[in-house]
Amino acid sequence: MRWLVSRLRRHAKLTLRPWVQNYRRRSAVLTPQRWGLTDDSAKGLVLQGVALEDLLQRWGSPLHVVDAAALRENARRFLKPRGKDSGCEVFYSYKTNPVPGVLRVLHEEGVGAEVISHHELWLARRLGVAPERIIYNGPGKSRESLREAIGLGIQVININHAEEVARVAEVARELGRRQRVGLRISTGAGWTAQFGTPTHDGAALRAFAAAHATGVLDVVGVHAHLGGMIHDQGTLLWAVNGVLDFVEQLESELGLQLQILNFGGSLATPTVHHDTPLDRRLNQTFHRELPEPAADASLSIEDYIDTLMRTVRERYQRRGRPMPRVFVEPGRSMTGNTQMLLARVISTKQAADASFLIPDAGINVAEPLRGEFHKMFAVRGWQQTATETYTVVGPICSPADTLIYAWRSRRLAEGDALVIMDAGGYFVPFSTSFSFPQPAIVMVDEGREYLLRRAERFEDVVSRDKVL
Amino acid sequence: MRWLVSRLRRHAKLTLRPWVQNYRRRSAVLTPQRWGLTDDSAKGLVLQGVALEDLLQRWGSPLHVVDAAALRENARRFLKPRGKDSGCEVFYSYKTNPVPGVLRVLHEEGVGAEVISHHELWLARRLGVAPERIIYNGPGKSRESLREAIGLGIQVININHAEEVARVAEVARELGRRQRVGLRISTGAGWTAQFGTPTHDGAALRAFAAAHATGVLDVVGVHAHLGGMIHDQGTLLWAVNGVLDFVEQLESELGLQLQILNFGGSLATPTVHHDTPLDRRLNQTFHRELPEPAADASLSIEDYIDTLMRTVRERYQRRGRPMPRVFVEPGRSMTGNTQMLLARVISTKQAADASFLIPDAGINVAEPLRGEFHKMFAVRGWQQTATETYTVVGPICSPADTLIYAWRSRRLAEGDALVIMDAGGYFVPFSTSFSFPQPAIVMVDEGREYLLRRAERFEDVVSRDKVL
Repeated sequence: MRWLVSRLRRHAKLTLRPWVQNYRRRSAVLTPQRWGLTDDSAKGLVLQGVALEDLLQRWGSPLHVVDAAALRENARRFLKPRGKDSGCEVFYSYKTNPVPGVLRVLHEEGVGAEVISHHELWLARRLGVAPERIIYNGPGKSRESLREAIGLGIQVININHAEEVARVAEVARELGRRQRVGLRISTGAGWTAQFGTPTHDGAALRAFAAAHATGVLDVVGVHAHLGGMIHDQGTLLWAVNGVLDFVEQLESELGLQLQILNFGGSLATPTVHHDTPLDRRLNQTFHRELPEPAADASLSIEDYIDTLMRTVRERYQRRGRPMPRVFVEPGRSMTGNTQMLLARVISTKQAADASFLIPDAGINVAEPLRGEFHKMFAVRGWQQTATETYTVVGPICSPADTLIYAWRSRRLAEGDALVIMDAGGYFVPFSTSFSFPQPAIVMVDEGREYLLRRAERFEDVVSRDKVL
Repeated sequence: MRWLVSRLRRHAKLTLRPWVQNYRRRSAVLTPQRWGLTDDSAKGLVLQGVALEDLLQRWGSPLHVVDAAALRENARRFLKPRGKDSGCEVFYSYKTNPVPGVLRVLHEEGVGAEVISHHELWLARRLGVAPERIIYNGPGKSRESLREAIGLGIQVININHAEEVARVAEVARELGRRQRVGLRISTGAGWTAQFGTPTHDGAALRAFAAAHATGVLDVVGVHAHLGGMIHDQGTLLWAVNGVLDFVEQLESELGLQLQILNFGGSLATPTVHHDTPLDRRLNQTFHRELPEPAADASLSIEDYIDTLMRTVRERYQRRGRPMPRVFVEPGRSMTGNTQMLLARVISTKQAADASFLIPDAGINVAEPLRGEFHKMFAVRGWQQTATETYTVVGPICSPADTLIYAWRSRRLAEGDALVIMDAGGYFVPFSTSFSFPQPAIVMVDEGREYLLRRAERFEDVVSRDKVL
């Protein structure tokens, strides 16, 4: 019976597959040129004159590659002076890509640090970031980390929720210091849950009043972080206006004028989006390709900053108030499309209803692919006619280790290289040493290669073990 | 409009909540005693005379704790001689809990090593496991790792799929060695996809013939791994009989008599199960508690081994054949319930529709909670009346970092300790250093504490970085 049901389902699936695959199919438009990659007829894709194939040869596979030019360009686009506005101040979300060599480039460009843990605070200081260039956020701030942050006198601690007010104040009192704080609010736009104090029921107002009343906290800012991925102006405006409404309320009801409006991050990488559950289901069951994001229609860094600054300025002008400082905390949009993950095919497997491609990288190093679209190319012959539909699975021996259920490509074999684009957001922090040590990270800068982080060795994985 | 819809949904949710929470509610029956924990009126839960609270004090929080007595007991239950049968041979699935101090205890008890990567093969050798006590499985075996495995002459390499036959044979020829191999099959029971060669369409038979024909591979075994969690005898019999049917076919069609039947792992930890999507949804939306597994009805280690051995023996007796060697590769069922994760509450957050509990451990160290039920207790006062329903979220600043949407407990505050049970399966390998360094691992053995792995320090997280 179980067998019959499974055969019937399989039959239905295979019969419907071609139809579902082709129904309203949007053709793929993203090419490697979008990421500045060029083509070499012998070696395949090339970054700044360096063949990706050569990178793998030299540094081993899998390999995480940082494009320094793209990284600097993104930082400059965020920081570019914009006419009469002084522009916004930019703090990079450390958790998104906590690679010291990457962070150093961003800091050199003038980007500050947004940290969410004691470790990240330590790392920012280790990289020489001045206290006034550090913001401390997050729902789980230990007392020890608060002591350090307040002792340093960092730019601002954003209190995540009302209950944190007393803790931050206690630590400040204990140290005999005053501390500049903001309060994270949730306006109904974007994430709520553990994040922020809601504005709609008066809780946020009360939290601001409480923080002010501690006598040791200088309440200088408001913090809001939409979460998810902002691809369009409408979503941005929804988030920004919610904050501006609350800031007016704060002024009219508490007489509090804030110096800092912090709008968090969440701007999307144009070539990445969250897959919809339906698209993933169709990809899994019917091998319909995941649709690409409409990258050209996605809100650019420039439009994001301009819209944000204009909206704030107009509101402040209308109210006859001087412009506040505007902070943003980009993560994905800063580093996402500046990195890529290279891998090699270990094996293929041909089954009756699917072809499997098994590279040496799985969810252990590319966890975001479980829910996000990331463009993937064969390093050689990516432009050849796609004759195969591959289910791309990693090596860690779990059905959860599936990067994509259906990916169209030329026929590939053992040793062929793949490149997964936009690996600069959440690939590194979600990496594990699950059965396979972690890859090296190399930066390519003006055609030269710099090892940022060496590959993990077998010994490293057990280096903290006392019983071996 | 967006606002109106969200308010209406919220209202519906809150109105329905009490009704959904109580509909056919099963009361919780699992207590800490099940794991051998005792109660101290002052310090709360105690393991082998050591208060969990004291462990946290001494070793820091979060803390991963191994109960050596439980570990040895599980190993002995698997290995216990059973009447006339010599019993089965047991190889522990390294990937499930690759902690050298844990593996060493298992090896001392007589358990072998089941590895799925070059790193794990290296680790088994590092721990002194003899080659004949090592099995190498998995879909992604690099040539380098095959060279090492064949060079060592390990017990058996289980070829994952037909395409691997040629690669393993090539490496054997290159080294001038013969190698004992098994072939992994998929019989329709359990996982298929990248795992195994299917039996139903003749592919598995052809793969066996091909392996035999290489001339350098001794085809000694068959490998099948159900996947998921086996909680009942029916599922086990379904899997075992599928393999036995194929073994008969192999003999009748190819005249091949196998020495080894390897049934893989997948026996459940009785107190853990995969949450159903409906239960998770009800937990998230209506704060209905996740139902506990029916632990007492779950297949025990003894019943699993006895059923398996009896089924094989009966079939072989019926066919007048001598009993083969029977291998099993337990993972979860060996270590799952021998470990626990301790954490401390950093903060709480009271919102209009939910109370949040924010411990210092999230999905960074307890990833399995995203899909599995794990019993959790307050270390002190776990038996007090549950007055609160908490959404338990980790500190890593992502809505994905939710351990459980609704968990009933006494009222807790900053500093209170929690214990998450059954942390011995997949907690360690799925751990990341996402914003927070990884915890120490301590083993408690006859009331003494042994540090197996020290906590990760801030410096460790960037120890492989060249640009700092």
